[in-house]
Amino acid sequence: MSGSDPTVGELSEGAILRRILDRLGASSALVGPGDDAAVIAAPDGRVVATVDTLVHGPDFRLAWSTAFDLGWKAAAVNLADVAAMGARPTALLVALAMPDDTPVSFVEGIADGLRAACEALAPGCAVEGGDLTVSDTLTIAVTALGVLDGAAPVLRSGARPGDVLAVAGPLGHASRGLALLFDRFRDAAGHPVVADLTTLSPAERIDLEAQLRPRPPLELGPIAAAAGATAMMDVSDGLVLDVSRLAAASDVSIWIDSPALGEDAAFALSGGEDHALLATFARPDVLPVGFHPIGRVEPAGEHAVLVDGHTHAGTGGWDPYRDWDAHGG
Amino acid sequence: MSGSDPTVGELSEGAILRRILDRLGASSALVGPGDDAAVIAAPDGRVVATVDTLVHGPDFRLAWSTAFDLGWKAAAVNLADVAAMGARPTALLVALAMPDDTPVSFVEGIADGLRAACEALAPGCAVEGGDLTVSDTLTIAVTALGVLDGAAPVLRSGARPGDVLAVAGPLGHASRGLALLFDRFRDAAGHPVVADLTTLSPAERIDLEAQLRPRPPLELGPIAAAAGATAMMDVSDGLVLDVSRLAAASDVSIWIDSPALGEDAAFALSGGEDHALLATFARPDVLPVGFHPIGRVEPAGEHAVLVDGHTHAGTGGWDPYRDWDAHGG
Repeated sequence: MSGSDPTVGELSEGAILRRILDRLGASSALVGPGDDAAVIAAPDGRVVATVDTLVHGPDFRLAWSTAFDLGWKAAAVNLADVAAMGARPTALLVALAMPDDTPVSFVEGIADGLRAACEALAPGCAVEGGDLTVSDTLTIAVTALGVLDGAAPVLRSGARPGDVLAVAGPLGHASRGLALLFDRFRDAAGHPVVADLTTLSPAERIDLEAQLRPRPPLELGPIAAAAGATAMMDVSDGLVLDVSRLAAASDVSIWIDSPALGEDAAFALSGGEDHALLATFARPDVLPVGFHPIGRVEPAGEHAVLVDGHTHAGTGGWDPYRDWDAHGG
Repeated sequence: MSGSDPTVGELSEGAILRRILDRLGASSALVGPGDDAAVIAAPDGRVVATVDTLVHGPDFRLAWSTAFDLGWKAAAVNLADVAAMGARPTALLVALAMPDDTPVSFVEGIADGLRAACEALAPGCAVEGGDLTVSDTLTIAVTALGVLDGAAPVLRSGARPGDVLAVAGPLGHASRGLALLFDRFRDAAGHPVVADLTTLSPAERIDLEAQLRPRPPLELGPIAAAAGATAMMDVSDGLVLDVSRLAAASDVSIWIDSPALGEDAAFALSGGEDHALLATFARPDVLPVGFHPIGRVEPAGEHAVLVDGHTHAGTGGWDPYRDWDAHGG
């Protein structure tokens, strides 16, 4: 035993679970953690469900992310998918696979981050179940559940010509933060080193926070649904790529006005991981507070997306199988 | 490109998803795969939810399991947890993390196994969402959802002195199958080699099937609930260990009668992964067809579990952090 901070390989699964459960806060489920399955309320007879995974290497580096960051981000990216349906998140299930030599304190940090993200981004949502496994690769797969409170889910397929395209939340910050890490916090061999925050400007710190602990305005998901959003999704893989998906699902073309994206439109157009909410509305005069217009929906044309009337150069977004190097450090 | 069977690293995530979705069969969800999240019906206002993960190394070896086997087992172990609440499975969400050089045909095999297990073990349940990630370690995290159709969930904590302990489904086969693999299908260096089924007796083939493609009678979960099961769980980590968990949750002691476990009681007592349903009933005369008595519930005593009146020697079950060697081949 390593004193007060043993590794997960030194404790039984039950002992690790007890240390995690102590940190997750109160369950609001009908049946919370500890049985074969949780039982979650779904009062209007429907449950929204999504899963997303963070993998060491392609999705994060341990020199750059604390355990708390990882728990936060794993929660946030899934909560965003629930909010993007117009739903209110109610529960997370967390499958954590980790090497034998992982300190239990690291697992506790992940639990703290999961709880903090729920409290900040989706009050009332908590971790209600999970699974611990040993693995050579640290992997966090989170399932998020949510409820629609009687509203219709807002799909990607509902955008119609004449709708306004609007966004709530930052665009481009997370990818600028990632670029910062790759540009400034690697050693001569290219391996990640701990980021010295004192070397960063205030704006750079905001970008780094957006990458490591994204804080999209997820409470606006149900508000957008109530305001009549015709289509919605979260921007996880880059604005142009995600808008092209929404356009394809809706069988329309979408024009983006890059001046509406702020000073650094290039990052806003291509950068992923902000998890801002992208939505279309039939009436531009009644956008919910927090959304601002960035374009418009047109009849299906030759191109799914046009930026200022032109096709967008570059990859148009991020694809984890193409753009990442899992062996880069 | 590798002709008709490229690797996942050679295709976009969207292209891989299309090939998988084609194999998953019809969605029965309100919103199926393809949006930010699925929407699943939960007519009585509650959803049962659980997650479990299979990791290459600790949980399976690619020489021993086909892709189909992995998909099947990943579904089965989660469906069992839903059934053990007395619920009927309705949907799976699958988070698949895999190396770049994984052939797409392998992913298709996993999809086929997931579908086949749902059709065989939980008709009406299908894969309704998922996530693909690149990882150095092949990992399959499955979330299963289910509905209770108006019944109360059957917890681990409801066993009362005087109840009969009963089981539905095989015990010990899966661990005998695992022992077969380790004993007979490794090379001189200890690394797994493909199992030559022609060398196995009919009984051994049954054991191997139980390990690779478990087929517990999950339809008996809701039937047990309707018949008044006071407590229930699935036997995933070994009978003695899981009975001790049920006893602790219920604050009782439980006696197991080993003659009721058949000829090979040692494997039945300690072996994991059968996913049989373990339940307690207040009336031994009305056990549902498929359940047979294997013991009884006593007031809480010095020991949580006694086998034929004695404490059980050995580890009492399987703990993935203790019993596995992730580096053994």
